[in-house]
Amino acid sequence: MPNDKKASTSTKSAIQALVFDAYETLFDVSSVATSLEQKFPGQGAAVSAAWRAKQLQYTWLRALTGQYEDFWKVTESALVFVCNDMKLHVQGGLQVQPAPVERAARAKLMDAYLHLEPFPEVKQVLQSLSAQRLAILSNGTLAMLQGVVENAGLKKVFSQIISADEAKTYKPNPAVYELAVGKLGLDKHKIGFVSSNFWDVAGAKAFGFRTYWVNRSGAPEEELGVRPDATLRSLSDLGSDSF
Amino acid sequence: MPNDKKASTSTKSAIQALVFDAYETLFDVSSVATSLEQKFPGQGAAVSAAWRAKQLQYTWLRALTGQYEDFWKVTESALVFVCNDMKLHVQGGLQVQPAPVERAARAKLMDAYLHLEPFPEVKQVLQSLSAQRLAILSNGTLAMLQGVVENAGLKKVFSQIISADEAKTYKPNPAVYELAVGKLGLDKHKIGFVSSNFWDVAGAKAFGFRTYWVNRSGAPEEELGVRPDATLRSLSDLGSDSF
Repeated sequence: MPNDKKASTSTKSAIQALVFDAYETLFDVSSVATSLEQKFPGQGAAVSAAWRAKQLQYTWLRALTGQYEDFWKVTESALVFVCNDMKLHVQGGLQVQPAPVERAARAKLMDAYLHLEPFPEVKQVLQSLSAQRLAILSNGTLAMLQGVVENAGLKKVFSQIISADEAKTYKPNPAVYELAVGKLGLDKHKIGFVSSNFWDVAGAKAFGFRTYWVNRSGAPEEELGVRPDATLRSLSDLGSDSF
Repeated sequence: MPNDKKASTSTKSAIQALVFDAYETLFDVSSVATSLEQKFPGQGAAVSAAWRAKQLQYTWLRALTGQYEDFWKVTESALVFVCNDMKLHVQGGLQVQPAPVERAARAKLMDAYLHLEPFPEVKQVLQSLSAQRLAILSNGTLAMLQGVVENAGLKKVFSQIISADEAKTYKPNPAVYELAVGKLGLDKHKIGFVSSNFWDVAGAKAFGFRTYWVNRSGAPEEELGVRPDATLRSLSDLGSDSF
């Protein structure tokens, strides 16, 4: 029963730190839809989904070609493309060759990325787990991660915030997961990795972490030849008895 | 004017071979929508688009983690996920743990990938260019590429068909573009690379090829920090005067 939550109890003693992905796992990326909806009435959710998909695509492509740009720039590039592709115009436009007003509109949307809402259960669950070593390992830059963690009042629960920026590449490149091993000073088999992004779980599992997939939406598993060690409905399933 | 078709004439003498991407460039991947429409009435186009997007995503993720599976398997995995995700059932279903009937339905859809239609202008343009060295460089397996090329009656125009399978990774990993350099025995600056996939053009340009982006749909450029050397409306713009 490799995919059963209860199965994880048996290795409870082995896991010495829990490492969390940030975007979609702790913080609801779709909460930018509110800002987007104000700019593009009726299309906030669609733009939000397209922005996130393009942002991820750009990280993978840049990691594969070695043309690294940090996550803030990649996120902004993804927004520019999506606005061009969906022919979206804010006051002053968000099109190519931005005028000052366009830059201001873009900056406001980007700012939403520093104020993402944590999922409802996050704060309570993390506080209940705070006797454990908890860390974040994310594609976000350190500034982005510190911003979103502080704005959500979660600064004290994490012993470390680790950014892929330090490796100048992106998940699921093994070099990013390796950062956590080095920073935590733990064997990779002693690290539990928690993510809502199945592709991230698959990368972390292939790397050697024990993996917890947070499947809030009841999505099917991705067909990547790798299965999570445990699948959770929310972070609330990460009770102190589960690792 | 780096993005102007006319600009390419100036380097005409430098380009000694043209290398084509296959899927979406020569062959219309959306032509599988016909088979899909028969299975899933009203949803053929949506399933076709989702299948292609997932197929590409899986290639990037597998290339990044080094968990290589060949393109036939990745394409089939993408189909399985999309059917699960969109809750699509054919007679007998396409869900997990396929029964024989399900496998038969899946095999029929996969077979459509061996019979993709070339875009209307492809045959004539390639024949007009056949005094040049023409090759294919694609993620597809050699069997998939030979199948689709033969079924389209294009076997004679290519001096070489090069599969990423030989490098056991996927575009835009530079190792794939490097295959063409080795196979053609030409300096990379003497190779013109033609693709409708902007991300592929960006990878090829970063690698060092001269790049031609075939933008049939009038899409905006992707924000990947790289621009094609020339943008064409179709392969017909690749007249003998253009390289």
